[in-house]
Amino acid sequence: MKRVLVTGAGGFLGTHCLAALVARGWSDVHAVSRSAGREPGVTWHTCNLFDADDLAALMRSVKPTHALHFAWCTTPGEYWTSPENLRWVAASVTLLEEFARSGGRRFVAAGTCAEYDWQHGFCSEQTTPLAPGSPYGSAKHAFQILLSSFGPVLGVSTAWCRIFFPYGPYEHRERLVPYVIRSLLGGEPALCTSGEHRRDFLYAGDVTDAFAALLESDLAGAVNIGSGEPVAVKSLVAAIGERIGRPELIRLGARPLPASEPDLLVADVRRLRDELGWRPRTALTQGIEASVEFWKRYG
Amino acid sequence: MKRVLVTGAGGFLGTHCLAALVARGWSDVHAVSRSAGREPGVTWHTCNLFDADDLAALMRSVKPTHALHFAWCTTPGEYWTSPENLRWVAASVTLLEEFARSGGRRFVAAGTCAEYDWQHGFCSEQTTPLAPGSPYGSAKHAFQILLSSFGPVLGVSTAWCRIFFPYGPYEHRERLVPYVIRSLLGGEPALCTSGEHRRDFLYAGDVTDAFAALLESDLAGAVNIGSGEPVAVKSLVAAIGERIGRPELIRLGARPLPASEPDLLVADVRRLRDELGWRPRTALTQGIEASVEFWKRYG
Repeated sequence: MKRVLVTGAGGFLGTHCLAALVARGWSDVHAVSRSAGREPGVTWHTCNLFDADDLAALMRSVKPTHALHFAWCTTPGEYWTSPENLRWVAASVTLLEEFARSGGRRFVAAGTCAEYDWQHGFCSEQTTPLAPGSPYGSAKHAFQILLSSFGPVLGVSTAWCRIFFPYGPYEHRERLVPYVIRSLLGGEPALCTSGEHRRDFLYAGDVTDAFAALLESDLAGAVNIGSGEPVAVKSLVAAIGERIGRPELIRLGARPLPASEPDLLVADVRRLRDELGWRPRTALTQGIEASVEFWKRYG
Repeated sequence: MKRVLVTGAGGFLGTHCLAALVARGWSDVHAVSRSAGREPGVTWHTCNLFDADDLAALMRSVKPTHALHFAWCTTPGEYWTSPENLRWVAASVTLLEEFARSGGRRFVAAGTCAEYDWQHGFCSEQTTPLAPGSPYGSAKHAFQILLSSFGPVLGVSTAWCRIFFPYGPYEHRERLVPYVIRSLLGGEPALCTSGEHRRDFLYAGDVTDAFAALLESDLAGAVNIGSGEPVAVKSLVAAIGERIGRPELIRLGARPLPASEPDLLVADVRRLRDELGWRPRTALTQGIEASVEFWKRYG
């Protein structure tokens, strides 16, 4: 009998992931967040993951066989350098230990493309140097090192998803896609960079379906979760302008691009596509449409 | 006013380090261990570093400006793969946070040559790939990543000592040098490998004097702590045989060398020597003599 626990279940990717698991036929899904949520077919638990006793009690009560770990600090503008990243490393270590102690078998956690040395635009799990340029990337990478080394020690099969640029409903309202959508829906100009830089965007529902597919496999180690297709930020923004019908409100070049932002960041998706056998299902235009509809309703 | 806190102060290197600090003129030395010790000129504290509340209370009471962090799991035969390494990462993170919170300025911690990819026998901080071959090496390396990334975030100057092969009084009795000394002093044969492999040995009093020198500097990042001189294990063992006058009890080739043990492991000491300006003071024969005298008294 399989039973999955999802941390950060109230967040952007966690919310999509619950739907992805249910859609894939997981019948015993347990969601953990700071406050109780509501999602049909899911059992909710509130837990302070920084409290080791609270976490241990949760694990003893749920006894999950599988875990998807999304919880981490994510506040835009803060999470790159927040000391809270350190607390998430410690909490994640405790989560892994308690999962193993309560009989857990398969643990998949959210990493980030920020673990790679961004001087290499094409990021490959096997060859691209891991040299995070930020405390956030370092903290995630430190936990990946611990996960891959101690999984075997603890008898837990593990994998690590290096997420590139997810977007979609429930994304934080200050991030790029929601900002542009909300500005245009409100008839306000959207102040953007020149948008020449290319990124690897993947619809959040696809990102989390890939997580679920990886959870169901026994693939080990780091796996990039991206589309594999570089898209110029100005093209993404233009697609939003077209969808909403207000392209004239987009102001390319109104903001400087920070020097730390490389020209290209794209995932090598060969592990995801060839080893896991997974492919994206949602075209950029569909993902944008879903995002616009979300902000029309909840903006 | 400078005040230093030393963790793991009751252990092998911690014990040497207290003496090194006092010898260098540190007048306000605070030692932390699980049980109270005795060392002239040192204030002792007992603390369970796995207990975050206990640790926070200690830091609020001592308010150290400097810290030397040695505490970690070290039981021979166990520490390479023990899950306790995970708890030491979490405890070290909490230690760093509480040190910063109580006004600490300079934090130096013990790393290991086991962080390097041992296929490269000559280990250099700048160029040798970091690819630990053990959970212990991975855990130490994960903490170094966190320390170097979050030191600046927390306003703490940090450095990291990659220790090679320390030996001397107070070393665990099951490790190579004490084992050979105790066997020979007891008139028993010492069963050794062929001893052709070369390692970088440094007397523990020198190792910890280098730690103290690094603490007094503002050098950042990883610094190898070694002699820079490769010595064949059979030469080290032979020096013990000569010193005790029982060379015939040494049985080279009586044990197989594990396949994981490389032929050469030696520190590139250019940072230590040229940037820190530090050099070893204790010749191998002197270090062996001190070790033999120790085991004559305490064996």
